[in-house]
Amino acid sequence: MAAEQDPEARAAARPLLTDLYQATMALGYWRAGRARDAAEFELFFRRCPFGGAFALAAGLRDCVRFLRAFRLRDADVQFLASVLPPDTDPAFFEHLRALDCSEVTVRALPEGSLAFPGVPLLQVSGPLLVVQLLETPLLCLVSYASLVATNAARLRLIAGPEKRLLEMGLRRAQGPDGGLTASTYSYLGGFDSSSNVLAGQLRGVPVAGTLAHSFVTSFSGSEVPPDPMLAPAAGEGPGVDLAAKAQVWLEQVCAHLGLGVQEPHPGERAAFVAYALAFPRAFQGLLDTYSVWRSGLPNFLAVALALGELGYRAVGVRLDSGDLLQQAQEIRKVFRAAAAQPEGWPPPFLHPRGRFQVPWLESVLIVVSNNIDEEALARLAQEGSEVNVIGIGTSVVTCPQQPSLGGVYKLVAVGGQPRMKLTEDPEKQTLPGSKAAFRLLGSDGSPLMDMLQLAEEPVPQAGQELRVWPPGAQEPCTVRPAQVEPLLRLCLQQGQLCEPLPSLAESRALAQLSLSRLSPEHRRLRSPAQYQVVLSERLQALVNSLCAGQSP
Amino acid sequence: MAAEQDPEARAAARPLLTDLYQATMALGYWRAGRARDAAEFELFFRRCPFGGAFALAAGLRDCVRFLRAFRLRDADVQFLASVLPPDTDPAFFEHLRALDCSEVTVRALPEGSLAFPGVPLLQVSGPLLVVQLLETPLLCLVSYASLVATNAARLRLIAGPEKRLLEMGLRRAQGPDGGLTASTYSYLGGFDSSSNVLAGQLRGVPVAGTLAHSFVTSFSGSEVPPDPMLAPAAGEGPGVDLAAKAQVWLEQVCAHLGLGVQEPHPGERAAFVAYALAFPRAFQGLLDTYSVWRSGLPNFLAVALALGELGYRAVGVRLDSGDLLQQAQEIRKVFRAAAAQPEGWPPPFLHPRGRFQVPWLESVLIVVSNNIDEEALARLAQEGSEVNVIGIGTSVVTCPQQPSLGGVYKLVAVGGQPRMKLTEDPEKQTLPGSKAAFRLLGSDGSPLMDMLQLAEEPVPQAGQELRVWPPGAQEPCTVRPAQVEPLLRLCLQQGQLCEPLPSLAESRALAQLSLSRLSPEHRRLRSPAQYQVVLSERLQALVNSLCAGQSP
Repeated sequence: MAAEQDPEARAAARPLLTDLYQATMALGYWRAGRARDAAEFELFFRRCPFGGAFALAAGLRDCVRFLRAFRLRDADVQFLASVLPPDTDPAFFEHLRALDCSEVTVRALPEGSLAFPGVPLLQVSGPLLVVQLLETPLLCLVSYASLVATNAARLRLIAGPEKRLLEMGLRRAQGPDGGLTASTYSYLGGFDSSSNVLAGQLRGVPVAGTLAHSFVTSFSGSEVPPDPMLAPAAGEGPGVDLAAKAQVWLEQVCAHLGLGVQEPHPGERAAFVAYALAFPRAFQGLLDTYSVWRSGLPNFLAVALALGELGYRAVGVRLDSGDLLQQAQEIRKVFRAAAAQPEGWPPPFLHPRGRFQVPWLESVLIVVSNNIDEEALARLAQEGSEVNVIGIGTSVVTCPQQPSLGGVYKLVAVGGQPRMKLTEDPEKQTLPGSKAAFRLLGSDGSPLMDMLQLAEEPVPQAGQELRVWPPGAQEPCTVRPAQVEPLLRLCLQQGQLCEPLPSLAESRALAQLSLSRLSPEHRRLRSPAQYQVVLSERLQALVNSLCAGQSP
Repeated sequence: MAAEQDPEARAAARPLLTDLYQATMALGYWRAGRARDAAEFELFFRRCPFGGAFALAAGLRDCVRFLRAFRLRDADVQFLASVLPPDTDPAFFEHLRALDCSEVTVRALPEGSLAFPGVPLLQVSGPLLVVQLLETPLLCLVSYASLVATNAARLRLIAGPEKRLLEMGLRRAQGPDGGLTASTYSYLGGFDSSSNVLAGQLRGVPVAGTLAHSFVTSFSGSEVPPDPMLAPAAGEGPGVDLAAKAQVWLEQVCAHLGLGVQEPHPGERAAFVAYALAFPRAFQGLLDTYSVWRSGLPNFLAVALALGELGYRAVGVRLDSGDLLQQAQEIRKVFRAAAAQPEGWPPPFLHPRGRFQVPWLESVLIVVSNNIDEEALARLAQEGSEVNVIGIGTSVVTCPQQPSLGGVYKLVAVGGQPRMKLTEDPEKQTLPGSKAAFRLLGSDGSPLMDMLQLAEEPVPQAGQELRVWPPGAQEPCTVRPAQVEPLLRLCLQQGQLCEPLPSLAESRALAQLSLSRLSPEHRRLRSPAQYQVVLSERLQALVNSLCAGQSP
């Protein structure tokens, strides 16, 4: 167990992060002499989230970290003793003190795989008492991670491959760890970067960020920086007072834009100068603190042109209010006109007397943010949009269309015997038995359907005709897959990691590859056509026999 | 700083849990010589969540824990250096290494207070660089806590004071900490208990839980417990084989219910017996694993009556599917009939030949769960409902009606000068200046409106006529409050805790008291009438002057 070497593990690994009923059931199992019965649970979801037809599996790396560090401390056992009956046999608590996951085996859908209803994301087997205790933390670690990865993948599908997506939802998350999970798994789902520094430090997610309105409003313009000088980009030649230089450019910019030179806010310009002094090679302006057109844009251009004179290129502007698309289009026109040869200049609202000869200005990034949801994103990503980077917070992190995946963790076998919940609510019935899962692919490599069968059945072969049962069907149907992929990989065997987990970036690449192979029909965001998950004949027969009340 | 003594603090206190732009702005401030400028920020929200007219303030205890432990470790500073420009002055990183909150002062709405739009939940003042860095973590810690507390309070208002509300949403939360936050603050908002053991251990939230379907399905009925004997409740007399005793009672129960004795599932009964052996004084049955009427209920009654013979009283049944209200009503009829004198017996579907003489059976708790939202809760809490305990997971934890509070953290003063964001989006404008906030109360103690004024203005007096400006008004109005309550309490002064924080239970009591004093109109869940937050004349004049572009 590597918990000691992993500082993150100790923070996450709180074995009491579980529902009390896991502990009461643990006592029940123990009292019944069944604590060490061999049991298997499956973790899955019942419907794809957000009205779509796919989900992405995620959260496995957190589960592995949790499982490897799983151990009840004395204080944990004492707390449980305080909430369980006072006459509980002390031997039960001794049993708890000795628990770990050294007898637990986990098979899992690799992170970034496509996941479908009823197909296990995790198969967890081991002593009944311990694998029962794991239910709540595993659900907690997998469900939200998979939900947010799926949500991010949808946003990536809407945005298309070119737009850069920045996750910036930490402040909207369910506390610190919600934010860390969101940042990690929205990156897995297809975002390019996150504002969350901790996700960069702990998970290697690329981080991004520039400045907020508070930075701008903190300057009145009367501040005197201790060192106003900036050296040229090439490093040679004398430094220049950037604020003074920007002031000179401002006059020209205002003349071009038809503005009075007093109109742009001096505090905003001072803030831009301060930021540019700190980040001369990465200058970005936030344009909407006072007025984009009368203040933010001219101040940005003044500072960007002053930097340009020193050989630096400004990299971006950000808009955080108003009609983001329309402003982006207009701003790009201004940039393009300023950057272009004279024939492109002036646009109607610019003064006719010149240009700035700054071709790089044309490609300054336009970054937008402000409560962007799927619908707003579609508009920002439309053909011809001049927006380059889209920052999304609330709607990626909170998954407002469906804030919970609804994952479940169900017992499928004990002592090698299949188990099934037969409740009168058919949707809540479970599929019994220890199972294997396969993805059946067409000749073009696109997934046709997933098949569940009993673990002991022979592995289906490519090219072989299979008789399978769609859910609720009266008759089996046949399918002849061109390829067959086993879905679940052995991840932990008797507590030992079987192979290194892929890196987060590798899982992200798998997610993008998997999505690209999915049929357009199943990739749609509102899909009436659900991807099929079918049962082998033997598994269907087992379901039938248990439903009919025959003992297995 | 007490971080070392607080194991929780170390887990939560990750100063890099922030947006990268806080760090880039920090460098910008530092480069501009402004790191130590005195600054003040306010944390507030712009609209009450969920379409209601109130919110509850929460999260302060997590903020205090975070602030007191705030310190960048070497590894944190090294990570920041890796993402900031390579030629950044090393003195900046030395500055970061020395940072803590020993110069930070926080005023706050006490947890459990009513909070309204624009009224600060926190006022944070201190050196500009450090209070800027705190933005994201403070928003993260306050926003969701306040949102879930408010959500829980709404559910409590719907449920009425009698029904017991159990939060059980850990598995639906945004990772471990989301679950811990949800459990803590749904208790503050008015829930009675949580399933989350960690919330019990770390926060003292009462915990509750019994058994899940997996426990039931894990038993086939052929298991032989190592010790099937149960001693009588009074502790005297010989033990009894509980399974055998339940089997005897089962025959009578089935006769009464008109069922064949083979119908109830033997595995479910074995599970109930196992649970009863572990929890003879707290036996509860989960009824819907197979069939409530043909299996769960008769098995529960058989085990409950066997326990009763030994002097124990079963405490509850749980339903997790189907029409929960209707089932509860029917089950209560059965319990009542079984408990009552002969004249109440039999209900039509029971056999006429007897009764069980178990009056306590009438008051067995009926616990329900299964995706209960506000609407479903209203039905379960209606007049005459026999439901006693309601377990709510997803809809309290994920706040699906509005999964984010949308809290913001805005600069209001630097170096004693007011600051204001004047964006063209009027909703995003901020209120400038260091402020004080008061609640104006009527003679019956109910809140009339909140008033914001500049910090240096004299405190308004009860009985005094005040001229105040409602938002967007053209004219001031007058109000003569019978009582005036200052809203913000000094919490941290120069990094030192000014007074012990109230316990979670005390904050919960404050929340219930505050809600009870709110007018019925403002307590409504969909309130067209928003509670008013008004400005003093001087604050309004400051807003006007800044909007007019006059320097303050």
